[in-house]
Amino acid sequence: MKNNQFARLTADHETVVAELKAIHFYDDQMTCVTSPTEVYQLLLRKAFLTTKDNGSFTNKLKNYLATPSLDLKDYFDSKQPVTTKIFYLVALQLLEFLVTEDFAIDNPLEAMHRMQLPTIETNDNWHKDQLLDAWYLLLTTHTKNGQTFLDRLTNQGYFIPFYDLPVREKPLFFNGKAQAVFDPAKLVREVVYVESSVDSDCDGQRDLLKVEILRPSDTEHGLRVPALFTASPYNQGINHEAGSRAMHDVNVPLQAKKPNRLTYQEIAYRKEKHSLPAPRVVTGETRHAAETFSREHSYTLNDYFLVRGFAAVYSAGIGTLDSDGVQTCGDPQQTEATKNVIEWLNGKRRAFTNRTDNIAISAWWCNGSVAMTGRSYLGTLATAAATTGVDGLKTIISEAAISSWYDYYREGGLVIAPGGFPGEDADVLAIETQSRMKAPADYILRIKDFFTKQMDQMAQAMDRESGNYTTFWDARNYRKDITKIKCDVLMIHGLNDWNVKPGQVEALWQGLRNVPVSKKIILHQGQHIYINAFRSIDYTDMINLWISHELYGVQNGAKEVLPNVIVQDNLVPETWTTYSDWSNPNSDKTVFHLAPGTLTEECSSDSIQSFKDDSPKDDFERYTEHIDQWENELISNQKQALRANRLIFKSAPFEKAQIIDGKVTIHVKAASNQPFGMLSFQLIDFGEEKRFNPSPTPIQRMELGCNWREDTLREFTLAKFPTPFKMITKGHLNLQNRENPWKVNELMPNQFFTFDVPLQPTFHKLAAGHQLGLIIYATDFAMTVRGNQAVRYSIDLSDCHLDVPFQ
Amino acid sequence: MKNNQFARLTADHETVVAELKAIHFYDDQMTCVTSPTEVYQLLLRKAFLTTKDNGSFTNKLKNYLATPSLDLKDYFDSKQPVTTKIFYLVALQLLEFLVTEDFAIDNPLEAMHRMQLPTIETNDNWHKDQLLDAWYLLLTTHTKNGQTFLDRLTNQGYFIPFYDLPVREKPLFFNGKAQAVFDPAKLVREVVYVESSVDSDCDGQRDLLKVEILRPSDTEHGLRVPALFTASPYNQGINHEAGSRAMHDVNVPLQAKKPNRLTYQEIAYRKEKHSLPAPRVVTGETRHAAETFSREHSYTLNDYFLVRGFAAVYSAGIGTLDSDGVQTCGDPQQTEATKNVIEWLNGKRRAFTNRTDNIAISAWWCNGSVAMTGRSYLGTLATAAATTGVDGLKTIISEAAISSWYDYYREGGLVIAPGGFPGEDADVLAIETQSRMKAPADYILRIKDFFTKQMDQMAQAMDRESGNYTTFWDARNYRKDITKIKCDVLMIHGLNDWNVKPGQVEALWQGLRNVPVSKKIILHQGQHIYINAFRSIDYTDMINLWISHELYGVQNGAKEVLPNVIVQDNLVPETWTTYSDWSNPNSDKTVFHLAPGTLTEECSSDSIQSFKDDSPKDDFERYTEHIDQWENELISNQKQALRANRLIFKSAPFEKAQIIDGKVTIHVKAASNQPFGMLSFQLIDFGEEKRFNPSPTPIQRMELGCNWREDTLREFTLAKFPTPFKMITKGHLNLQNRENPWKVNELMPNQFFTFDVPLQPTFHKLAAGHQLGLIIYATDFAMTVRGNQAVRYSIDLSDCHLDVPFQ
Repeated sequence: MKNNQFARLTADHETVVAELKAIHFYDDQMTCVTSPTEVYQLLLRKAFLTTKDNGSFTNKLKNYLATPSLDLKDYFDSKQPVTTKIFYLVALQLLEFLVTEDFAIDNPLEAMHRMQLPTIETNDNWHKDQLLDAWYLLLTTHTKNGQTFLDRLTNQGYFIPFYDLPVREKPLFFNGKAQAVFDPAKLVREVVYVESSVDSDCDGQRDLLKVEILRPSDTEHGLRVPALFTASPYNQGINHEAGSRAMHDVNVPLQAKKPNRLTYQEIAYRKEKHSLPAPRVVTGETRHAAETFSREHSYTLNDYFLVRGFAAVYSAGIGTLDSDGVQTCGDPQQTEATKNVIEWLNGKRRAFTNRTDNIAISAWWCNGSVAMTGRSYLGTLATAAATTGVDGLKTIISEAAISSWYDYYREGGLVIAPGGFPGEDADVLAIETQSRMKAPADYILRIKDFFTKQMDQMAQAMDRESGNYTTFWDARNYRKDITKIKCDVLMIHGLNDWNVKPGQVEALWQGLRNVPVSKKIILHQGQHIYINAFRSIDYTDMINLWISHELYGVQNGAKEVLPNVIVQDNLVPETWTTYSDWSNPNSDKTVFHLAPGTLTEECSSDSIQSFKDDSPKDDFERYTEHIDQWENELISNQKQALRANRLIFKSAPFEKAQIIDGKVTIHVKAASNQPFGMLSFQLIDFGEEKRFNPSPTPIQRMELGCNWREDTLREFTLAKFPTPFKMITKGHLNLQNRENPWKVNELMPNQFFTFDVPLQPTFHKLAAGHQLGLIIYATDFAMTVRGNQAVRYSIDLSDCHLDVPFQ
Repeated sequence: MKNNQFARLTADHETVVAELKAIHFYDDQMTCVTSPTEVYQLLLRKAFLTTKDNGSFTNKLKNYLATPSLDLKDYFDSKQPVTTKIFYLVALQLLEFLVTEDFAIDNPLEAMHRMQLPTIETNDNWHKDQLLDAWYLLLTTHTKNGQTFLDRLTNQGYFIPFYDLPVREKPLFFNGKAQAVFDPAKLVREVVYVESSVDSDCDGQRDLLKVEILRPSDTEHGLRVPALFTASPYNQGINHEAGSRAMHDVNVPLQAKKPNRLTYQEIAYRKEKHSLPAPRVVTGETRHAAETFSREHSYTLNDYFLVRGFAAVYSAGIGTLDSDGVQTCGDPQQTEATKNVIEWLNGKRRAFTNRTDNIAISAWWCNGSVAMTGRSYLGTLATAAATTGVDGLKTIISEAAISSWYDYYREGGLVIAPGGFPGEDADVLAIETQSRMKAPADYILRIKDFFTKQMDQMAQAMDRESGNYTTFWDARNYRKDITKIKCDVLMIHGLNDWNVKPGQVEALWQGLRNVPVSKKIILHQGQHIYINAFRSIDYTDMINLWISHELYGVQNGAKEVLPNVIVQDNLVPETWTTYSDWSNPNSDKTVFHLAPGTLTEECSSDSIQSFKDDSPKDDFERYTEHIDQWENELISNQKQALRANRLIFKSAPFEKAQIIDGKVTIHVKAASNQPFGMLSFQLIDFGEEKRFNPSPTPIQRMELGCNWREDTLREFTLAKFPTPFKMITKGHLNLQNRENPWKVNELMPNQFFTFDVPLQPTFHKLAAGHQLGLIIYATDFAMTVRGNQAVRYSIDLSDCHLDVPFQ
């Protein structure tokens, strides 16, 4: 186990004492005691939460080794002094590390250092101040199981006596972070209906949006809390079957597109003037909701903070169960509706207790500060809301978020599916999330006809036939409004996320460079996952530090303490490295030229190489059913089925490890023997290596509070067996979109053109001895249409190069 | 979805009214109302738990269709009568079924019938009594999501107002089953130390056993509750790494054993006379525990019942963290210690508040009735405890339990690993569960030396070299004491469980035939899993009916209502069939003779066929690393690597489906070219078929109460693609143990002997057109030692037959 904590604050002795007092570890009794051993025993007495009397406490002391031959009870009886070695031998046991497996009993410090656990070390016997400093440090140190020692005590009930503190003493911060002094059994759950400024179903009424709120009961007694708002179209359920039925066939041919001369100005989205119905007439006001809810679809990160003085707010938005309107999959109406919920939380908009009675209810319990949380579509809506510059939104924590929907369903003039979902498109996702379907009367009697028409229109507008960037997509490109962002932005993305691809976050990161807000990014080795329950990084602590600052105004230095860029290593488990930047557009690039079979920095080649795109029927069908086999056989040299369907170029083995930091681009001169064509590119890390398993390994249950919800602690582990290669990144282009994704050029068969294709940005360490590989091919069974067409592509190597931003 | 409910009781109208009153659905207001529509509306008002006022309730009514063109609000406004069709169209929506996906709005009854959901049907308009009867039936009917409608309401908070009822009104039973009227936020958690009647670590003191208790707070106010006791050696954590280090090498040769003439009497275990130290001297008494605990390792079935008026009691037993003694892996001392906990719960034994102060504490909150729960080792200890006939133990619910440890680690004179754990043995499991290791001072300073010696002795006594049934194993055979069982026995086992194999439960089932207790068995298609969160069967309801009867004495007819045998179909998902018996030893057997390549009922063959046992090094290493590849290639005809390593015999295709019910035996005449040898047999179902995925598919979160713990609802689903075969069952024999597992015979090389080998019992339906196959081979990479020895086996087909108990 290797500990990586970025959110632990260093405290001076005065702060240590004050904060230990605040959480009742240091009390009046202890003030009078000067003997370090006695203080130590008193601290342990408070930490051993399961023992109610001294007899039982003494019994438990006998479980712990103070020295290799003395248990903790006998040690205390012996009146020996506290030393560094004794303290950390006990500390390792308190932190749940295991003898032999994790540490040797005669050398606790070696283990502390090896596992990157912080220590205070002296050669002398400890005095009281050192002991208190070390205890404070221990409380803020991670145990073996992914949470701080104080969180571990929290889960055992340490803060239960704090539940009844007067609200003036809440929230409670320790080491700059909010603590769990709120009773989960007494959370208030209520539903309100926010009146939005859209009428997406054109029924002559502003769409009402169902909002579910969970807040600490202390708000009933005067406490005002910030809100963690998760806008999730999935939140009220999804129409899984209807979505499946709507999936598009991807086994269709690529076709020649009619050339056009469109400029961006011609396709740019211009704000539509929807006539907005008048607001409802308020018939009364109340502080009490008329509707509640049972188990919500929660995000465990919100759950963690619910007992720490934050409200959790969920809203599924237009078109979803119990709300009005229709799903639009990312259009400005959806952004407006999302923003409207924040306005209500910030006191600037109305909500009602139900959908008919027009009794207004305000967010009187909220301090007006909002952070948005959530992954994928949820993070996407957070990004969308941020680009409105809405008041009250102090920060977004956007995980694996889309910043432009074109890049989610299209690329370079091609239909490109999110990895794992061939055939999905904007209309499919709209149908899947139109959860008003789950209320048959509401759906069938009131919205079905309108929605069906809307989906027909969407299917037209998204223009699956061309794959071009059209006005439909421009309306769903949040990046145009990055400069309007006023809130701080925390971005989290998986470097192996082929659902929402890394380019989505990289474009946001680049766009924010000159925007005067704080921005931080964490890049992990996962696919499309959450990382809030990882053992090797204190993700939740970082968020705690961040939102305690952003939403409660705690002066904890969060913006300075948290690194700008944290990247998880792809070779060594449990290794997270900080950097000042990622994907700097001005960084130098190493240019590799292409020669038959090789990538080379020195020479280029005059050779023209070609490959076909079709496969025998058997292979074709096998690949459509088992995309993993296609993925493997495309790169592998063992199977010969795809030998003539792609070109492979490999560099010489690297003498020392190299890091690719940012966007690799390929310049290629190519021809198709048809009046249409597409090219796909994969960058490969060749080299026998035990690599990370694609999904993290579950370790154990992780509690989010005392008698509260739970998550599963996880970590990336190395696969049992080595693999010969790994795909680093990929890119695609329709050859008729060689200038840009909206303009269609003519493609003359067998005539060569040059193209520049950026691959998805990455951060990847190539180990010494490994080779960099490039694969050029056409049909991507995981992402493109699969027409199995007899197209032949030729590549003129004399004008090809791969530009790699090595760090 | 297909609903299978075995625990739903049919109630007459008088009972319906009385029970609806008891749970406050039928109240005084309703008594005065005669209009069925009004009653219906009042019932719905109580069921719509999220709406606090009438406006919101009316809003929600608009989500439901009463007829294809009328929502429920408009329907009520229209004053139309209640009809069967209206009631069940609404019912389907209340039960969370989906339009189109699950039912058509113009034919709700077709869907009710197809999904096996019970109905009350008349052609007339309903009167009040019918409505109440139908509402009662609806409450007891399963929703789409694996729980009754009443459980769904429970999770939404229906019973929260019941938490404060006086204890004389608790527990509350509805339809014969205990309801969740106990507040999960107020559970009492306490630890006691039961003084056992063993001194397994020979330290001159009776072993104290740590016991964790969770009980409803109502017990503090006079309620006495039964206990669900789970004895789990894993409960205080396991020593995963130490266990891994202790694993035995299975890549060792099979060796010739020295013949013996042992009789069973010579190896039979005789109760050892351990000198038992005097009990501790009690220094005081208390009703209040001195120790508590935080999140326990719970079994979700117990969690479900904790809010329904049962205590949950966990104890890990001798050798585990915070207890005394050493782990013995199933010996009589462990059984005695397990029994001792029940004696304490039953008021017949002492416990203390901690390990040193000798202050006694009784189970004053317990009504003296105990059921044991849990799977695998947990169910094993339940079985062990049952064979003591201890007072107070009313029933055991033993899931995937071991009834004889020899059959877990050995078979027919061979070391046979539990599937998935080659190299594991009794000592490995003892080391893994000696969780005193987790308290380094307790372990290293007080027990390590003794335990290490004990493990050396165990490694000797279990006799891995011979694989014989020895006194060590006879001491761990609970089946010798089946006739002492006084409690009722519910058995649950997976027909695909190759960890704890089906023979374990079948032997218990057979042994109980003449024991005057009630016994029931459920056989599912899973491997080594729990089935308490399955969608298609009301497992938890069955347990509720059972323990409400057994532990609270509720006269609900549980013993008559629950079928004796329930078997999950292996071909059609969500299909559970009841039978009166399983594996009847007197049933007829169909005899198949062996001819080259075929199993035939008609003729036999004079042919002698032979096969080798060794493989080329590459294949051998591949199989040891990828056992799944060996499993597949042994049966498959595609790969040729094992062609000479086994014989395959196939029947003609069956004209109609056939069920194998019980134990298939093989009689074989065979020779080895060495003075030692082993034979393995697999019975195969050959036939292209979409079969069940080996593990159930997760469906969604399932709540176990309101704001309480959760489980994951699951179901077996068909694989995406068909497979050509499936292994039904297998068996193994050391040829030197041709008489029995304790007596070793001489094996003369190349001399033929006859053997009878019972395969693991099963219940398997062969579809029409499928073929029954038999594979004869030697080394089983998943289970036997793997010496890769050049042994050649010959089979004389003239004296071979396979006896199959077709139903």
